[in-house]
Amino acid sequence: MTRTILITGGVRSGKSAIAEGRTLGFGAPAVYIATAEAWDEEMRARIATHQDRRGPEWVTHAEPLDLIGALNATDGQPRLVDCLTLWLTNLMLGGHDWRAAGQALAEALPRQGSPVVLVTNEVGAGIVPENKLAREFRDAAGLLNQWVAAVADEVILAVAGLPMKVK
Amino acid sequence: MTRTILITGGVRSGKSAIAEGRTLGFGAPAVYIATAEAWDEEMRARIATHQDRRGPEWVTHAEPLDLIGALNATDGQPRLVDCLTLWLTNLMLGGHDWRAAGQALAEALPRQGSPVVLVTNEVGAGIVPENKLAREFRDAAGLLNQWVAAVADEVILAVAGLPMKVK
Amino acid sequence: MTRTILITGGVRSGKSAIAEGRTLGFGAPAVYIATAEAWDEEMRARIATHQDRRGPEWVTHAEPLDLIGALNATDGQPRLVDCLTLWLTNLMLGGHDWRAAGQALAEALPRQGSPVVLVTNEVGAGIVPENKLAREFRDAAGLLNQWVAAVADEVILAVAGLPMKVK
Repeated sequence: MTRTILITGGVRSGKSAIAEGRTLGFGAPAVYIATAEAWDEEMRARIATHQDRRGPEWVTHAEPLDLIGALNATDGQPRLVDCLTLWLTNLMLGGHDWRAAGQALAEALPRQGSPVVLVTNEVGAGIVPENKLAREFRDAAGLLNQWVAAVADEVILAVAGLPMKVK
Repeated sequence: MTRTILITGGVRSGKSAIAEGRTLGFGAPAVYIATAEAWDEEMRARIATHQDRRGPEWVTHAEPLDLIGALNATDGQPRLVDCLTLWLTNLMLGGHDWRAAGQALAEALPRQGSPVVLVTNEVGAGIVPENKLAREFRDAAGLLNQWVAAVADEVILAVAGLPMKVK
Repeated sequence: MTRTILITGGVRSGKSAIAEGRTLGFGAPAVYIATAEAWDEEMRARIATHQDRRGPEWVTHAEPLDLIGALNATDGQPRLVDCLTLWLTNLMLGGHDWRAAGQALAEALPRQGSPVVLVTNEVGAGIVPENKLAREFRDAAGLLNQWVAAVADEVILAVAGLPMKVK
């Protein structure tokens, strides 16, 4: 039985809608683990757009940093983690050890008792950024995606709102 | 019968050549609906390169904004729209309602009597741009791709000049 | 028998690890043809990370420009070229004719007597760069990928460390 599903893709590629459908396919109510922090107005608007689309089948659990704690606290129900890239951003901006956290996540996922669908982003297919922090973030995001994909039962690439099977 | 084909991919991924082959596969002469506007010398050179590759099987119909009008005016022949991303650019730079235009296009496509092949771009797989307009454009391009992909009979991702089936 | 394999993907998508596995699948020792030049500290660190992962099955052959010469000099053993994008960078920064060199490579590959696995990068799926040189590089990288993919027996897109078959 598929338990861990990673859904990756570019921005506005339809990742979240695909992830929501897959999560509710495991049953309702489902837990929406939101890693976003509303740093500015643009992010607040983006969060609101996502919340508007979700209906009453969802319970929201906001957790910007302790993702493993959030998974353990919600085990037993289908979970959607949206998204790993913002979690990584929070870890890096907060000066946390993102490598240790990412590897701990990859170890924690196979021990979960109920399904986990994780959304992440493809950020490495553009031109090399001139900004050094952006290059480091891009490298970190790629590694985190690899660690989670390695333990996932299924990996999907979203393109134009459609799922492509990767694993 | 496949009627609407969306071909997406990164820059220089071979989208146009794949799209030209698919369009002529429906018969000749075919109509090349060019949405490009030659804003500067670089764009003029890019348009010329594309025109040089196309042969006498093609009739060019230039239309930067009224894409639905161009489709209706050319119905009956195979059409290639190259490309949606430049059409979106023209809509946004001209202050038009790109959401209304994009949704109207998605409604108009299934009503076409002859095939339409549309080229678009993957612009959302790089690092988050620092420029706010670039972020808005990236979001808009992703949504437009989703709307058209949802009504397309076939969706292709071009990688290194080769077609990958998405739908 | 598969002889020429092109492996493309975004940064940190796991391309090199996939390429190393495929090359050693043809036998050991294998030749690692490194096109990287250590321009700065960041690049030196990146080269060292890649070298640390490779074991004693590898012989390194460093060649920033004359890639065809390097292939001819090592024919008879499995070769891994890592990577085409850095080779292109070296050609462009050195003022060489990258189009002639890229097309000569595409002609030389099918004449090789032993397998060649080539790593390259997807750099064209982000927003249009504001920097003109970056746009030219992006175009050149896309064309080079197309030329090599056209003669490759197999083309793989790496996503989150996993291989997707393109050809």
